[in-house]
Amino acid sequence: MSSSNSTGMFKGAREYFPGIGRIPFEGPSSDNPLAFKHYDADRRIGDKTMAEHLRFAVCYWHSFCNAGHDPFGPGTRAYPWDAPAPSGDSPLARAEAKLDAAFEFFTKLGVPYYCFHDIDLAPDADDIGEYEKNLAHMVALAKQRQQATGMKLLWGTANLFSHPRYMNGASTNPDFDVVARAAVQVKAAIDATVELGGENYVFWGGREGYACLLNTDMKRELEHFARFLTMARDYGRSVGFTGNFLIEPKPMEPMKHQYDFDSATVAGFLQRHGLADDFKLNIEANHATLAGHSFDHDLQVASDAGLLGSIDANRGNPQNGWDTDQFPTDLYDTVGAMLVVLRQGGLQPGGLNFDAKVRRESTDAEDLFLAHIGGMDAFARGLEVAHALLADSPLETWRRERYAGFDNGAGRAFATGELDLPGLRAQALERGEPARRSGRQEAYENLINQYLLRAGNS
Amino acid sequence: MSSSNSTGMFKGAREYFPGIGRIPFEGPSSDNPLAFKHYDADRRIGDKTMAEHLRFAVCYWHSFCNAGHDPFGPGTRAYPWDAPAPSGDSPLARAEAKLDAAFEFFTKLGVPYYCFHDIDLAPDADDIGEYEKNLAHMVALAKQRQQATGMKLLWGTANLFSHPRYMNGASTNPDFDVVARAAVQVKAAIDATVELGGENYVFWGGREGYACLLNTDMKRELEHFARFLTMARDYGRSVGFTGNFLIEPKPMEPMKHQYDFDSATVAGFLQRHGLADDFKLNIEANHATLAGHSFDHDLQVASDAGLLGSIDANRGNPQNGWDTDQFPTDLYDTVGAMLVVLRQGGLQPGGLNFDAKVRRESTDAEDLFLAHIGGMDAFARGLEVAHALLADSPLETWRRERYAGFDNGAGRAFATGELDLPGLRAQALERGEPARRSGRQEAYENLINQYLLRAGNS
Amino acid sequence: MSSSNSTGMFKGAREYFPGIGRIPFEGPSSDNPLAFKHYDADRRIGDKTMAEHLRFAVCYWHSFCNAGHDPFGPGTRAYPWDAPAPSGDSPLARAEAKLDAAFEFFTKLGVPYYCFHDIDLAPDADDIGEYEKNLAHMVALAKQRQQATGMKLLWGTANLFSHPRYMNGASTNPDFDVVARAAVQVKAAIDATVELGGENYVFWGGREGYACLLNTDMKRELEHFARFLTMARDYGRSVGFTGNFLIEPKPMEPMKHQYDFDSATVAGFLQRHGLADDFKLNIEANHATLAGHSFDHDLQVASDAGLLGSIDANRGNPQNGWDTDQFPTDLYDTVGAMLVVLRQGGLQPGGLNFDAKVRRESTDAEDLFLAHIGGMDAFARGLEVAHALLADSPLETWRRERYAGFDNGAGRAFATGELDLPGLRAQALERGEPARRSGRQEAYENLINQYLLRAGNS
Amino acid sequence: MSSSNSTGMFKGAREYFPGIGRIPFEGPSSDNPLAFKHYDADRRIGDKTMAEHLRFAVCYWHSFCNAGHDPFGPGTRAYPWDAPAPSGDSPLARAEAKLDAAFEFFTKLGVPYYCFHDIDLAPDADDIGEYEKNLAHMVALAKQRQQATGMKLLWGTANLFSHPRYMNGASTNPDFDVVARAAVQVKAAIDATVELGGENYVFWGGREGYACLLNTDMKRELEHFARFLTMARDYGRSVGFTGNFLIEPKPMEPMKHQYDFDSATVAGFLQRHGLADDFKLNIEANHATLAGHSFDHDLQVASDAGLLGSIDANRGNPQNGWDTDQFPTDLYDTVGAMLVVLRQGGLQPGGLNFDAKVRRESTDAEDLFLAHIGGMDAFARGLEVAHALLADSPLETWRRERYAGFDNGAGRAFATGELDLPGLRAQALERGEPARRSGRQEAYENLINQYLLRAGNS
Repeated sequence: MSSSNSTGMFKGAREYFPGIGRIPFEGPSSDNPLAFKHYDADRRIGDKTMAEHLRFAVCYWHSFCNAGHDPFGPGTRAYPWDAPAPSGDSPLARAEAKLDAAFEFFTKLGVPYYCFHDIDLAPDADDIGEYEKNLAHMVALAKQRQQATGMKLLWGTANLFSHPRYMNGASTNPDFDVVARAAVQVKAAIDATVELGGENYVFWGGREGYACLLNTDMKRELEHFARFLTMARDYGRSVGFTGNFLIEPKPMEPMKHQYDFDSATVAGFLQRHGLADDFKLNIEANHATLAGHSFDHDLQVASDAGLLGSIDANRGNPQNGWDTDQFPTDLYDTVGAMLVVLRQGGLQPGGLNFDAKVRRESTDAEDLFLAHIGGMDAFARGLEVAHALLADSPLETWRRERYAGFDNGAGRAFATGELDLPGLRAQALERGEPARRSGRQEAYENLINQYLLRAGNS
Repeated sequence: MSSSNSTGMFKGAREYFPGIGRIPFEGPSSDNPLAFKHYDADRRIGDKTMAEHLRFAVCYWHSFCNAGHDPFGPGTRAYPWDAPAPSGDSPLARAEAKLDAAFEFFTKLGVPYYCFHDIDLAPDADDIGEYEKNLAHMVALAKQRQQATGMKLLWGTANLFSHPRYMNGASTNPDFDVVARAAVQVKAAIDATVELGGENYVFWGGREGYACLLNTDMKRELEHFARFLTMARDYGRSVGFTGNFLIEPKPMEPMKHQYDFDSATVAGFLQRHGLADDFKLNIEANHATLAGHSFDHDLQVASDAGLLGSIDANRGNPQNGWDTDQFPTDLYDTVGAMLVVLRQGGLQPGGLNFDAKVRRESTDAEDLFLAHIGGMDAFARGLEVAHALLADSPLETWRRERYAGFDNGAGRAFATGELDLPGLRAQALERGEPARRSGRQEAYENLINQYLLRAGNS
Repeated sequence: MSSSNSTGMFKGAREYFPGIGRIPFEGPSSDNPLAFKHYDADRRIGDKTMAEHLRFAVCYWHSFCNAGHDPFGPGTRAYPWDAPAPSGDSPLARAEAKLDAAFEFFTKLGVPYYCFHDIDLAPDADDIGEYEKNLAHMVALAKQRQQATGMKLLWGTANLFSHPRYMNGASTNPDFDVVARAAVQVKAAIDATVELGGENYVFWGGREGYACLLNTDMKRELEHFARFLTMARDYGRSVGFTGNFLIEPKPMEPMKHQYDFDSATVAGFLQRHGLADDFKLNIEANHATLAGHSFDHDLQVASDAGLLGSIDANRGNPQNGWDTDQFPTDLYDTVGAMLVVLRQGGLQPGGLNFDAKVRRESTDAEDLFLAHIGGMDAFARGLEVAHALLADSPLETWRRERYAGFDNGAGRAFATGELDLPGLRAQALERGEPARRSGRQEAYENLINQYLLRAGNS
Repeated sequence: MSSSNSTGMFKGAREYFPGIGRIPFEGPSSDNPLAFKHYDADRRIGDKTMAEHLRFAVCYWHSFCNAGHDPFGPGTRAYPWDAPAPSGDSPLARAEAKLDAAFEFFTKLGVPYYCFHDIDLAPDADDIGEYEKNLAHMVALAKQRQQATGMKLLWGTANLFSHPRYMNGASTNPDFDVVARAAVQVKAAIDATVELGGENYVFWGGREGYACLLNTDMKRELEHFARFLTMARDYGRSVGFTGNFLIEPKPMEPMKHQYDFDSATVAGFLQRHGLADDFKLNIEANHATLAGHSFDHDLQVASDAGLLGSIDANRGNPQNGWDTDQFPTDLYDTVGAMLVVLRQGGLQPGGLNFDAKVRRESTDAEDLFLAHIGGMDAFARGLEVAHALLADSPLETWRRERYAGFDNGAGRAFATGELDLPGLRAQALERGEPARRSGRQEAYENLINQYLLRAGNS
């Protein structure tokens, strides 16, 4: 009923993307919109292949579930898998068709990973037994597809934000009944992740926050949140999950304020509650910018705390104050991100998940391919440029030299805690008025453009 | 040469605000712009007087130093104390005149506290000896003025952001020479604070951050920052300072990104570096809003962490993306702030410091009085309303009842860590689909307006 | 089958808000959440009653159609009218039930006006004949309800943003077929408005803009827009519509950029295309703030251009970058708005339409009443305060005196165009360096709080 | 005393940038920071040279006057020309030295144009006679320098925002005395511009707006503004100025709200007041983004109105809400800008003026060169890419085809006003439900990256 042909492409009972085959690498001079111009999976950059560096994942929700609704209108795309089949219609039958479409897409695109929420993969149900049965059924099917194709699960998660019961929060809900109900999904999603060999498990707390501070006991809610994460961690470890748990920060939307505001906030929370050994961060570009940071800033904060676990690759819109989840095509973003990733020695077991959606107005099946190709090429080029900046350019030397005064002598004594305040003041008396040292921002910025545009470094 | 008359007003050799006497309380029906309509210092609200609750401070920098410059033009106010005196002209003579003007203003307004930076009070100098001598001279004078008037110092601080040497940071500067030079000022400012009986000592890291991430080693800079604060704490304790050290968060401006971004960021930093027993937070309204929070949100985060130490009372401009430092006249802000303060049992030894400046276009001497009167009345009314909301309205009951499910039974077992994830799931099976419970935001918001406009509660 | 009882309350075959009767005025000292504390419909403020000044309208879409969905989850409210009836189920049967619920709500709340989109009132259909028939059927029923209750239609409009066909715009769509299809709805909605005696007809161009400038010919789209509005105007006048056409500015959302950005943009557009005699503006608070303006700013710009036609009363959230459409409870907003309205002599034939929705988490039927009561009280109090400021306070005098120099002499000659540049320069030579005149912003701000909190002026 | 050597470089009595010669073009593979990698002045792109397309100008204020002050600290750069000379010290002597430094810089960098405010060039003075004399003196000197070097003046302007007298506005000041005083400067600056052969004259209304709406009569102020511009236009034409008058929009800062908010606002204003034949717009990137627009959006709006006159090339900081005036190095910005410019057939008599400043922390003399080189290269590459997109890529075809339905038949009849609303509705009946046509945003975005990174097109 399904097959994975010699090119590694999967096709189920029906082909959902006819006319599009495996996306080839054709290089920068190609005019073929359905070819990679920079992403050449097996090409080595430094000590790893592009595929090993980038660990791309496609997300299930935006690409196969979300038909393009927004607050002002319903979806615009009629997905062929979300329709009655000749053999009849049922939520499970549609879920199975969607699974086929997804694996066809993954393998035609040539990504190694995917990600899902429980109810992306399987039909939701208020009845707990039915929900669990649906999920188990789809997990078994997905496992078959993974085995047939070699696809792997980057991470699984539970959707604790869409169902109306979670309107006031899931684990931070003021109503204990809702907190308990959330445990149903998290347990099931952890089980599913383990069964599918998922390398990470993610929490995004879309409703963990408040709409109104007046009716909220923030302290109590955050304690419940920590308690819930602790239980999930303990459960995951008890059933053999050895990967990272990941928290995905976002400052707001859907709530007015969300508790996982940004990297610094979550790092403090994890450390305060003894969770920093098992949890890391999954940083999303558009969430970082909504929090008032640049993408590379929030990545760097996470990395500096030893907590950068994975990346949700997308892009916001500088003029719009909500999560537009556009595909990442800004090369400054991808260079900046890859600088952080390369400096920390890679993302594994995390990866680059395209938590991005084609625009509501992009209604051709081809658009989904174009969008991912554009994102993958942008990150592939970002990797090339970042690697060249680190390996060939003066960037690291320039930066290191700014701090050379702390490498030895009194500067080092300061940094290692061997000076007290009067001792430090005495150094000032000795050294006199400091020289003015330029920060040279323009030199650094010119260097980025120089390497970005230099063909020779790719 | 100077005197504090029977009404407690101080007047130096020259009267700087002639025609304005001690500001009286005249009540809400008064049409006198130079009278309080709500702030009645000795009136009891609950268990304390208004003065004891509010602990108002006037800041030296905006009120007596800043003549109204902005990036597009110089100051607009010609301060009579910043001019040659009949007896000659020198920086110290101007500083002495300014001190007289300040104490005249403090006592005419009727606030108990003031705050300063080292170089607000005394002339700056590149020469370390001269700088220290200037400050010592002015501290001695200020001590006399305090004794004569009963005025107290809420907090002192060092200005580590104006001098060009700090352009790349003070304690986080890549150049060790600058870090050492910063120690000169911090030591001197701590000494000054101790000498003047200051109840707190503040750090605002205006240049502690970066203009450009490319040239910055954020991890190293933050380690230096922690090291510096530790030294300052140790020195302060060694010379007898028993008050709180305070960090004042701000997300940006003058730098692109500042390290003390917001309450959550600083709380995590202090806890990570073992500083949370000695340091608390000084929350400024306009800084909170620049960080993407409401004022009461950032106050609540600090309070929940046991770290709300003091408040810089002002107001931003919702349409402008920089620190406008307007006087706080929005009653929603003052009610929200006083709810947090009353719930935590007060601010002492912190207070409400008006880190606010009259507009550049407000060039009459009277404007400085009007501005402070407006701010003090807004907080006095905020105190009245917050107290009534807590004491008389259903607010606390409503909020407590939302969380009642965690007060006993399985909810309590969850909260205290006695359930594991499968156990929590079992609760969901037992309890069935949760009921939909309204968050009733509109009811809460209507309650605020009801008490704000109700004359009877004042 | 339906009745409007002696108190003017309408009740259809079923009562949808049982237990809630006509909302009474009980005054500021009332603790009854379901009573007005400030809105006393027949009380005179100046030369009109509160009802005549405020001309409140309830909107159909948020209050009876929108069940609380957002981009992250479906609706949370199960409306009893949006369900199968004992007599069977059909879109029209639900629309009829909704109409009953709406008129019950209008009359229990005591507002004189309502507003709707075509497909709020009647079921949408791709088939043009069916769509038109549905609308005509519901319009006939609504007309009966209006006659039975005395309710009036403030304005009607066509929803040209929800249906996927409009994803790239309605009258500005690059596809002529879509532009033509939009004409179907606009013609029908104008016909409906005329039939129901609507006093205004509104255009909100939710999809008139772009998601991406790269694929857009903005000039051509705007010309089409003007052409379309011209046709609608001509048609409306031809079928006897004598009210105002209104454009509702909004800068973005759902599109990245919307053409009706703000008051100034739309005023320029209307004047450029000869539409300013028939079109005015419908200003929404949350749209103004998204455009980077204060609410009163955009009202004032419209009013100064002679184009302020009506108001969509709501409130945004200063921390959130999308249209939160909260109920207007900020008294500074309502005072500011009523200052503009009173100064221009009122809004008629426009009104104050609550384009606001209860929060997604507000799921009790009562919440809809509380929300409207809070908004109506806030505007009633805003009216009282604004009237007192204009009638009793020094506000108008202060402001007028600032410009007195242009009332006669050379200043007047300048203003009336009787001076040339050298002549104006000559005035400077004669007058010498201008005196510094304080803008006194703090005095003005204090005055607002003084009148807001003064019980005596209400 | 001064010389312009064979390479065209100017050197005055003293060399201010020793060790830096004429900046050469070395191509993309060069590692020399002081060489152009893309800007090759005489290289032809289409029908013009790069120099003719780009018409670069250096601004006097940021580069030679502004030493790096910000609201939190004074300048950081000690300019050698802003210091006592061996021959003595006076404001005029410093202005003369600054002029030498400026022309040395212009000619070493190799730009054809410069821009200034009256008081950048000459010392300001409250005394009108002295002010005019200072300016006339410096204009005469600048004229000599222009003749010696071939440098040209892109535009002149008057600084009507720095002096405290303008704190409440210049031509929109409530005080007629100030309006008159502004005429002194505008007349003098127009005279200077004419004398120096300036090709444009600019108005930037930094204080034309309000800090507080409460004390402001916006309508009256805008009428004065129009009156003032009319007088300036008439005067300019009377003294032989034939270039464009330019308005530079900015939404805010220093004022809370500025009247020249954005392109759409100013276009409406100019058209309303009969000024659109003589005035055009000078669009600044960072001003556009502060107004909530993308740079290319505001350029396009101006261009569509036939009003795009010139560009102030810089870049804002997406995380900072004020005018950071960074050098333009974002290639997406420069490609987007050049698409608009090329489509309208060029900017002449306008140009690309670097209204940008090196960072406060960039204190080396070299930084000023690096900053301009980076900006010039970014625009040169933007020009290459935009030209290739228009000449070689499918961009224009794709876009045109979206609108093909309006090129003939009923679509054309609609566009030319030959259909009425019922006729348009009839088209819909005939055509049936419109097909879903993808907007293909991702395809367009990929195309930009494809051409940006393609070496062959340069």
